[in-house]
Amino acid sequence: MIQEQKDKTAIGQQQYPLLSGIKSPADLKKLSIVQLPFLCDEIREYLISCLSVNPGHFGSSMGAVDIIVALHYVFDTPRDRIVFDVGHQAYSHKLLTGRYEAFLTQRKKNGISGFPFPFESEYDSFVCGHAGNSISAALGMAIADMNTPGEENRKTVALIGDASISNGLAFEGLNNASQNPNNLLIILNDNEMSIDDNVGALHRYLSEMSTSAGYNRLRFKLYGLFRKWGLIEDKGKGRVLRFNNALKSLVARQQNIFEGLNIRYFGPFNGNDVTKIVKILQDIKEMKGPRILHLHTRKGKGFPAAENNPAPWHAPGKFDPATAKRLSETSMGDRLPLWQDVFGNTLVELAGKNESIVGITAAMPTGTSMNKMNCYPNRMFDVGISEGHAITFAGGLAAAGKRPFVAIYSSFLQRGFDNIIHDVAIQNLPVTLCIDRAGLVGEDGVTHHGVFDMSYLRIIPGLKVAAPMDCETLRNIMYSSLDWNGPLAIRYPRGKADTCIWKTPFAKIEPGRSRKLAESPDSRIAVLSVGPVGFEVIKAIERLKSDGLSADHYDMVWIKPLDTEVLSHVSERYQGIVTVEDGCVSGGFGSAVDQWLGQNGKTIRVVNLGIPDNWIYQGSVGELRADCGFDSNGIHDAICALHNELSQSDCHKNQHTPDL
Amino acid sequence: MIQEQKDKTAIGQQQYPLLSGIKSPADLKKLSIVQLPFLCDEIREYLISCLSVNPGHFGSSMGAVDIIVALHYVFDTPRDRIVFDVGHQAYSHKLLTGRYEAFLTQRKKNGISGFPFPFESEYDSFVCGHAGNSISAALGMAIADMNTPGEENRKTVALIGDASISNGLAFEGLNNASQNPNNLLIILNDNEMSIDDNVGALHRYLSEMSTSAGYNRLRFKLYGLFRKWGLIEDKGKGRVLRFNNALKSLVARQQNIFEGLNIRYFGPFNGNDVTKIVKILQDIKEMKGPRILHLHTRKGKGFPAAENNPAPWHAPGKFDPATAKRLSETSMGDRLPLWQDVFGNTLVELAGKNESIVGITAAMPTGTSMNKMNCYPNRMFDVGISEGHAITFAGGLAAAGKRPFVAIYSSFLQRGFDNIIHDVAIQNLPVTLCIDRAGLVGEDGVTHHGVFDMSYLRIIPGLKVAAPMDCETLRNIMYSSLDWNGPLAIRYPRGKADTCIWKTPFAKIEPGRSRKLAESPDSRIAVLSVGPVGFEVIKAIERLKSDGLSADHYDMVWIKPLDTEVLSHVSERYQGIVTVEDGCVSGGFGSAVDQWLGQNGKTIRVVNLGIPDNWIYQGSVGELRADCGFDSNGIHDAICALHNELSQSDCHKNQHTPDL
Repeated sequence: MIQEQKDKTAIGQQQYPLLSGIKSPADLKKLSIVQLPFLCDEIREYLISCLSVNPGHFGSSMGAVDIIVALHYVFDTPRDRIVFDVGHQAYSHKLLTGRYEAFLTQRKKNGISGFPFPFESEYDSFVCGHAGNSISAALGMAIADMNTPGEENRKTVALIGDASISNGLAFEGLNNASQNPNNLLIILNDNEMSIDDNVGALHRYLSEMSTSAGYNRLRFKLYGLFRKWGLIEDKGKGRVLRFNNALKSLVARQQNIFEGLNIRYFGPFNGNDVTKIVKILQDIKEMKGPRILHLHTRKGKGFPAAENNPAPWHAPGKFDPATAKRLSETSMGDRLPLWQDVFGNTLVELAGKNESIVGITAAMPTGTSMNKMNCYPNRMFDVGISEGHAITFAGGLAAAGKRPFVAIYSSFLQRGFDNIIHDVAIQNLPVTLCIDRAGLVGEDGVTHHGVFDMSYLRIIPGLKVAAPMDCETLRNIMYSSLDWNGPLAIRYPRGKADTCIWKTPFAKIEPGRSRKLAESPDSRIAVLSVGPVGFEVIKAIERLKSDGLSADHYDMVWIKPLDTEVLSHVSERYQGIVTVEDGCVSGGFGSAVDQWLGQNGKTIRVVNLGIPDNWIYQGSVGELRADCGFDSNGIHDAICALHNELSQSDCHKNQHTPDL
Repeated sequence: MIQEQKDKTAIGQQQYPLLSGIKSPADLKKLSIVQLPFLCDEIREYLISCLSVNPGHFGSSMGAVDIIVALHYVFDTPRDRIVFDVGHQAYSHKLLTGRYEAFLTQRKKNGISGFPFPFESEYDSFVCGHAGNSISAALGMAIADMNTPGEENRKTVALIGDASISNGLAFEGLNNASQNPNNLLIILNDNEMSIDDNVGALHRYLSEMSTSAGYNRLRFKLYGLFRKWGLIEDKGKGRVLRFNNALKSLVARQQNIFEGLNIRYFGPFNGNDVTKIVKILQDIKEMKGPRILHLHTRKGKGFPAAENNPAPWHAPGKFDPATAKRLSETSMGDRLPLWQDVFGNTLVELAGKNESIVGITAAMPTGTSMNKMNCYPNRMFDVGISEGHAITFAGGLAAAGKRPFVAIYSSFLQRGFDNIIHDVAIQNLPVTLCIDRAGLVGEDGVTHHGVFDMSYLRIIPGLKVAAPMDCETLRNIMYSSLDWNGPLAIRYPRGKADTCIWKTPFAKIEPGRSRKLAESPDSRIAVLSVGPVGFEVIKAIERLKSDGLSADHYDMVWIKPLDTEVLSHVSERYQGIVTVEDGCVSGGFGSAVDQWLGQNGKTIRVVNLGIPDNWIYQGSVGELRADCGFDSNGIHDAICALHNELSQSDCHKNQHTPDL
């Protein structure tokens, strides 16, 4: 079955008569409008074929096919720009813009990115990966064009999902969209995940209103009435516009935030009807001023299993297209738990004993396993894609006596940096940041690697920062933290934990206390690691034996406070130190060690391993670690190199001794 | 005159018969409601007396007196909580909560803070300094109380200004306010700065609508009409509520964002009528669910000069209460320009030559001198209090060919951390971050010091980070940067620059190039500084002469890229290095030097001077620098101490030489 499926990913005119002919949007424009639904079908079939063997974001990609085909059909890309938001839905954009053949390399090392990325294609107008940035970025482009001679007629479209638009950054963009002259078109891809079924009829009614005579009659009637009552006057186009918006908001009963922001609003329309979208886009394309087009789409459109159960089909892993059976669970084989599950289950366990514990997630209940806290419905808060609010909200809960645990992916936590400083740390509030997806995350690539957290968190006064090596330590930190004052950050990676036997009895541990994992009397070098990368160190040290060498190993656990007692000992006992971290070397754990040693007058030679001062793109975690030089081979080689350096230095010293 | 005025700040029963009797809100509650307007008058008189001699935030404090008196009169503080936003308006809160006598120490070292601060008083329920955090924090408290036995009836009020509510964080809070059961009351203190005069009559009309029979009749009539047309149904309270909100939004034509968020809305009312506010608060105090009360106040209320010209009276400096003459300008005496003006004027100068230059400010056109770009009205963007948007918007402008200069205060830039990484640096876009108020800012205290920027910016790949020592270098970096690719950050402090002759001819400089300022053949120590703190180093080295010592001085200019050529030279030429920076030592400039030296096998002794890993509170910049040990005395002493250490080490070495 799978083999058959793989054949379908080949570019055959037979299987994909329309799609196979499209090398760029220019080819798309040669099609007649009646051919577009067939093209959309082909794209969906191709996506099913590809994603069933090379997993990716399935549901939103399937839902957005029609919108993307219509956009490239109507607009003059790449001169006209499409700015995606998050970009899970952008796969068909890649297929239509010359990346049809490269598509199977997506999310792989040296392949194409899983998101639009400007360095990859001139059709990718802006980076996307963190939600809510499209409106601000597209607004910048639209205003720039208005002020650049010859560029005034260039078009910019921001395509944003209904989850992203709840983000504060998106709101700031919307709030500024009508401040300066521009012709920005914002398309809200509303995939109905959050829509109440019983208002569906009203929605359908509404979707036709904007153009229907009935709506216009109603509008006119009410407008006259309000004028008679002296509530509105004729002068000022803005007020009339506002009147329309308010009327729509009233009957739609939707929580969309466009109303009142003086942005012309169209919709909602069916976003899975490609010919209709083309017509609407042709109608509003040349209009002046900022506009919002609200389209309803169906996640997983065209694949019934995904349509009916969208959550697991957001990124389903490998699956059988014929039976819709997801293959990922069975193919894994092993029983190792995910780090996030160890976190989630431990939190539930602790919450059962301590009523003050509450959990907060920013739109990632499944991704962070915070959904396990659903057994305490009043104590789990999903605040949507709003990391800043999540942290300040946690600060408020903590100020009122709760013990909040906030689970956020490392790279998204960057959005809450000021909130950690201002709303938590300055007041020394007991908020625990549970930083998931810390370190290299693999296939999601440059926007998603959680590489900066140790560097930007260790500079905040009073914040404790830990990176447990194993899930037992994660559990013990969570358990012990309930006795501690002040804020705490715990970082742990994406993926599987180290052991099946994770549910160990709780034991108290102390902040800033490391543990020695390997010791040998001959060792001249100490390896200091934080986090699960310590297992790579164990392998590296094992390999050293065949070289006739040894090194001692300390799992430091804490980036802050550092175990200064051990650092002091290490600087006396050894001739060299290698630090290892799954994070950026600049300013990170190794840097903290360097700085502590220097400021305390210890002049021992230290080598810092970790992520270099470059952007790291997609690939498997193993491949990327090897590239960065901190997989077991890289660590092994660094220890050997330091050994050689120290030996040469010995010779050098011995040579020079007579001169003294 | 000023002497007379000072006497008025004494607590005399004669001058302040009501205020002088209020030691806590319990005393306030003993007053009858008819006495409250007189109390408000006294508070205003006292504020004028104090702030005319001890400058602070005048306009908003004067405007908010009545709201704050009413809140403490109606609510049971500190059990009931008031969460301020920014807190410029909170002075009368301090007067009513036992800090009447301490008020003249406000913003001074060891005095009380200029903002509410929980460690200062149990009446200050949350930190405030960065705009927009009050709703999220107060929501956390309100929800915590709902879920804590015995606390369900505790009240929480967020008091937020109309500028803060445009912030993305505030929106995220509002967007979540109706998700979980809570009784949060949000008060919008709308000080009319942004309200169009010609709709004033409609506003007054509206402010009475909510309770008026006319409004109720209108609402009932329309409601019937809409039911008849089948647009709304009776079931569902939310829809009725929404109907009211939409109706209000329609006639008010205000850009407030509450409509549609399912939060009960009251207002707008006159926020300078204390007895009326008391009555309204008594009415809505016990209501369930989240509510918004919209109050209009007048900035500078009670002081005609400030009422008529609110912008300069936001924080006017010293003034004569009788004549309303501001004394600050004349009393300064010298003609040194502000750093921000050197920046602003230079930007205008460059913009005249390069049409692609645009300027962006986040609600600080005056504070950053970005208002100088008003001479190019299409090329200056004030985006309101939305630092994240400001940076992503700049990314969009840059992607479309512009050269954006974004001026943001250092501590507020923390809000844009992810935007710098994700929306600028990953794409290597030529956005220039002009970081004003970098380093210790003095009287504004812990929330406003710009101490982290070097540490969190230097870890971002491809971002250049400079801290010019003098304004000539600032100008030359801005000028030269137009030839460079990629993003750039330039940090400079609050206050006066170093020289009157700042408008020097432009000269090209190179990133990562330092300059030597002092050299002596006997020097064993090199001092490496970044930024204007280099002038303290010059003084310190001057003082060394009387100790018979010397040290060489390098102005490194760049935190990133480091001048590694000079670092390499310095590590060979000297026996010790002292780094000096006006920023946190953790992870900052000195840390970058430590790490570079260590990773390049240089084992020279380095001492890092700067801000320690503690929170720094208010005081003058000079006082705080001295506390941190990097004023000229501190630098002098550190150099001497390192000299002694090196000399002892020499003795030690000499003693041990025979053993080798």
